[in-house]
Amino acid sequence: MRARDLAVDFPTATLDTPALEAAKLLAEHDLPGLILVDPDGRPLSILPGTQVLRLAVPAYCQDDPALARVVDEAHADLFLRRLGGKTVRECLPEQPKELPVADLKATVLELAALMARTRSPLVAVVDGVDGGRLVGAVTLQSLLDHVLEV
Amino acid sequence: MRARDLAVDFPTATLDTPALEAAKLLAEHDLPGLILVDPDGRPLSILPGTQVLRLAVPAYCQDDPALARVVDEAHADLFLRRLGGKTVRECLPEQPKELPVADLKATVLELAALMARTRSPLVAVVDGVDGGRLVGAVTLQSLLDHVLEV
Repeated sequence: MRARDLAVDFPTATLDTPALEAAKLLAEHDLPGLILVDPDGRPLSILPGTQVLRLAVPAYCQDDPALARVVDEAHADLFLRRLGGKTVRECLPEQPKELPVADLKATVLELAALMARTRSPLVAVVDGVDGGRLVGAVTLQSLLDHVLEV
Repeated sequence: MRARDLAVDFPTATLDTPALEAAKLLAEHDLPGLILVDPDGRPLSILPGTQVLRLAVPAYCQDDPALARVVDEAHADLFLRRLGGKTVRECLPEQPKELPVADLKATVLELAALMARTRSPLVAVVDGVDGGRLVGAVTLQSLLDHVLEV
């Protein structure tokens, strides 16, 4: 089994995608993260769902989640409104991490090694080794489903 | 909306659960991770799915995933067999990270702040502030589903 057999279509976003739209994509498709691509369709970064929350949660609550308790329940429910007007660009971590990218020929073991090394439950699959365009993604879920059946 | 309204039953494991069984739980229930509990049912740690892979992937492949390509496809598919005989205890990271735990009264904002701070798409919900027992979990997915509907 190779990446080409396991890769599935995967929703993408760009740096200019509104952060609220990114949150909706994550929720609607039950995704562990979004793949960000550049205008040529090359993977730029993987945006974990928890990073989108970072943009919506006030900084004082992130430093000390207990402080969030001062916000009452009705207002707490509305915190995602702080995403209004912000884009995915602002959700990205300051220090970019190693991007889990594999080509179509990668074996299951290569995909697993990439996930283990980058701690990403998602590998972007591209159509060439360097500067390839995104053709899909392999999730930890689909990888485990396959290897547990062997 | 509070943690008590969002928390759902969540599969747990202990330090002595076989690693292969943990991989099966992750795959069968489409989970981002497992909650590890002690014999009294108190949350000990959260085990991300990618950590289970770390135990199955040979160290030389983790250092350089490209080296995994020397293993042929048929054998690559079988890499999970290396989990045989190992337990969850061996999957845990050496340096324990802050555990995302909330009590039943935590608001949506508190849960989001915990997820953002710990970068965990999963918060364990306990029945008391200190040393409480696990009663369920809130996932990033269920949190986003709720706040996007408000």
